Amino acid sequence: MSNSFGKFTTREGYQWTKEDDITAGLPSVSVVQPPSNLKPSTQVDLYDAAVIGAGYAGLTAARDLALAGQRVLLLEARDRIGGRTYSANIDGYPFELGGTWVHWYQPFVWRELSRYNLATELEISPCTNGTGLNKTIVRTEDGMVSLSHEEEFAKLESILTKFVDVDGQLGRAVVPFPHNQHFNADLVRRFDDMSLADRISELGDQLTPLDRAMLEVYLSALCGTGDLKDVSFFEVLRCWALAGYNCVDFLATSAAFKLARGQSHFARRFFDEAAATGRLDYKFSCPVSAVADHGDAVELTARDGSSFKARRLICTAPLNVLKDIQFSPALPPAKLEASERGHVNRAVKINAVARGTDLRSFSGLAHPVGGLNYVSGDGATPAGNTHLVGLGTGLRPKDDVDAVLATLRDLAADADVERLVFHDWNEDEFSKGAWAWLRPGMATEYLEALRERRGNVLFASGDWAAGWRGCIDGAIEEGGRVGKEVLDELRK
Amino acid sequence: MSNSFGKFTTREGYQWTKEDDITAGLPSVSVVQPPSNLKPSTQVDLYDAAVIGAGYAGLTAARDLALAGQRVLLLEARDRIGGRTYSANIDGYPFELGGTWVHWYQPFVWRELSRYNLATELEISPCTNGTGLNKTIVRTEDGMVSLSHEEEFAKLESILTKFVDVDGQLGRAVVPFPHNQHFNADLVRRFDDMSLADRISELGDQLTPLDRAMLEVYLSALCGTGDLKDVSFFEVLRCWALAGYNCVDFLATSAAFKLARGQSHFARRFFDEAAATGRLDYKFSCPVSAVADHGDAVELTARDGSSFKARRLICTAPLNVLKDIQFSPALPPAKLEASERGHVNRAVKINAVARGTDLRSFSGLAHPVGGLNYVSGDGATPAGNTHLVGLGTGLRPKDDVDAVLATLRDLAADADVERLVFHDWNEDEFSKGAWAWLRPGMATEYLEALRERRGNVLFASGDWAAGWRGCIDGAIEEGGRVGKEVLDELRK
Repeated sequence: MSNSFGKFTTREGYQWTKEDDITAGLPSVSVVQPPSNLKPSTQVDLYDAAVIGAGYAGLTAARDLALAGQRVLLLEARDRIGGRTYSANIDGYPFELGGTWVHWYQPFVWRELSRYNLATELEISPCTNGTGLNKTIVRTEDGMVSLSHEEEFAKLESILTKFVDVDGQLGRAVVPFPHNQHFNADLVRRFDDMSLADRISELGDQLTPLDRAMLEVYLSALCGTGDLKDVSFFEVLRCWALAGYNCVDFLATSAAFKLARGQSHFARRFFDEAAATGRLDYKFSCPVSAVADHGDAVELTARDGSSFKARRLICTAPLNVLKDIQFSPALPPAKLEASERGHVNRAVKINAVARGTDLRSFSGLAHPVGGLNYVSGDGATPAGNTHLVGLGTGLRPKDDVDAVLATLRDLAADADVERLVFHDWNEDEFSKGAWAWLRPGMATEYLEALRERRGNVLFASGDWAAGWRGCIDGAIEEGGRVGKEVLDELRK
Repeated sequence: MSNSFGKFTTREGYQWTKEDDITAGLPSVSVVQPPSNLKPSTQVDLYDAAVIGAGYAGLTAARDLALAGQRVLLLEARDRIGGRTYSANIDGYPFELGGTWVHWYQPFVWRELSRYNLATELEISPCTNGTGLNKTIVRTEDGMVSLSHEEEFAKLESILTKFVDVDGQLGRAVVPFPHNQHFNADLVRRFDDMSLADRISELGDQLTPLDRAMLEVYLSALCGTGDLKDVSFFEVLRCWALAGYNCVDFLATSAAFKLARGQSHFARRFFDEAAATGRLDYKFSCPVSAVADHGDAVELTARDGSSFKARRLICTAPLNVLKDIQFSPALPPAKLEASERGHVNRAVKINAVARGTDLRSFSGLAHPVGGLNYVSGDGATPAGNTHLVGLGTGLRPKDDVDAVLATLRDLAADADVERLVFHDWNEDEFSKGAWAWLRPGMATEYLEALRERRGNVLFASGDWAAGWRGCIDGAIEEGGRVGKEVLDELRK
């Protein structure tokens, strides 16, 4: 049965081991087999809704519509579900190649975790009381500093608090309703026009050189950029507000709680529930190249020449690749411009397995930013080794694995690395970047335009969510929003 | 059309004005007219699912099932939707008779507000920068104290912080996963066995007499009890954890953000969406007296003698009245026992309109607890007067309105009250109490049993939600949980 949680191999991602060197493709429950349930005999001439993309936005919209009785077609360019989020299931452990962490402050993902009985299956990534190297090492141009986790947190708290405290209320006065950016629009614009680098300059000598180094590494890892001039300060301030205006939860919402069985296990629940309705047709490895809205129907043309029609189309292509689909009529200018400018996140995330448990409670930071800047113990594998997560920019791990291994060993106390698992989102033609972080000014300039429909074509992506933008939660929010809009119309 | 937002009059609630004295019944968009869409000609012999109760739990379950193609019967004892939450729509202003406040940390309600495009329609109840009496007056046996709002908050923060700080981490160590009470089960049991009064005793002289008075008034208003021995300390600690372990958000999640158009406007979205599927049959003013699970079907008998059959039944009767329905087979002993013990909340909530705007930023507290203990400006009416909310226990406003008016004037600086709007939830046979607060030991002893199904009968209520228990959010969580469980079965 195609809906069982079989573990197949996606052609995406890479693995390195000492024995096999680099190999392409990863075992993952995100792969649906067979890759299509379309049959010429039961071909639907006009779907109620077609959905481009089987990330969380597309999965949510497709599921909601299929559940509500609509005939839905889901076309996915990749050979798997999940978009910029999937797990490689290796030796009984889920390595997250993309989006990983969730929190109960994220309403849309939490509702789904609860609905699928997964809300009590959280694991905690950071470990600060392990044996072995239970500390944080910060390397800067001035040398190396070793901090206990308590010292690291106290420092981060003091630094981040200065960074966000633009109103003497840690951001509460400027962003009292973090899901509503129309509130305090003038202030929003002012802070959206500022970059992270601008804000750091503003703080001047309120930060020591070490403070500044840690802040830059932290922000670089959060936003996936080696140049902090490229990210809007408002976007980080808003994220801080969403997390409750405090450092503990800011860190907790960004990288603390992950799913014990992995994101792909979760994403399968959406897909399988939709498929079980019998009203979902789907085709993987089927990139859509053109979309034409003829007024009475939308026609989709895939790269392989196949074409489909639907009364409504939901396009969930990420911001950075939206421009690559040929729309007729053309995308509205603001949408196209936003896609051409694109979001800045070029993060490289490296999963590594290090022998033994010494590094479970270890974190390493390196300044200046650019390259691999952050590594941290993330979990323990069933074989008793440590799962490390590394974050950086400017790396091309598949082309230069030795450099990555060397930096990793440097950063992580000569870790004896026996496996790497990674996906290069920047080279990936269907994402051209990682989770979204908008450039200065983009939120005020483009968000409304990005959410707008055009005729029978609707656009949904976590990249322009109102709440947890760039997160799994935002993708589910957007899929739900647009799914509801389409459903209300189709019902009439 | 029965689904339009007509404003009809519910027979529930009371209003007092200088001109008309006490009158029963309130205008409200929560009243559905006509009160039933059942027709003998289209009578359904066997529904897929029947739902008892049209509060948020029942509305959510009924909507989700009807949307997913199931034939649903919704039976409601009252003449309106919303259960312990409804608005009286008077002179262009929604007075909330029951559940009022929401927050984006409440994932289930937030998802729905977003889905219905209401997430940006929040209004803020507390006002701390108005003209007029911009302060808090605390009356205790030792006299009267006047505090600025900054002083009041600083005091409350210091008091509540002591109250919850059982682990040196403001509760984070004891309740790291506030939606999962199986985590740290031993500690949970220990704190669940303690009452609020026990915890106050434990603090001893860490609290000044004024601190203690303010804490007791605050907890009494939060939990709706005049006797703090009756409420589990864990339940409050968990609520603090859900709110992010800090005083600002603890206050914000409990009584800050309300819906500009009122709760009944929101609840109508659920009902109307369900009704629009054409798969929802409903009957108001139809209390169910007996439920018999015959194995192949569940039979419901209403007080008026009518009976219905369904493959599954979802009962959303509140904890305190679950025992009043005759179940066959009988309710499992733990469920029955929990219902017989009941939750403690006997809050009386009084909406008052005071002439002018002087009291918009005013709060009054009175100690000892019992009687009307708390009053606060909640909004401004279109006519330019102030909406005050009073909370207390032991009052029977409809029998002794003069006493309520006198206390209100006492507490609220001789307010010139021209209107009262209230509902006595304690005298109400379909609730027998207000929002749920569990007694010491009940969470550990009964929660699992309360969530358990029995054959074809499933039980859903915010009173035993995993997350925001006793809240609108918890009701939606529960309706979603049970609706999904039934749907998965019916699909097979």
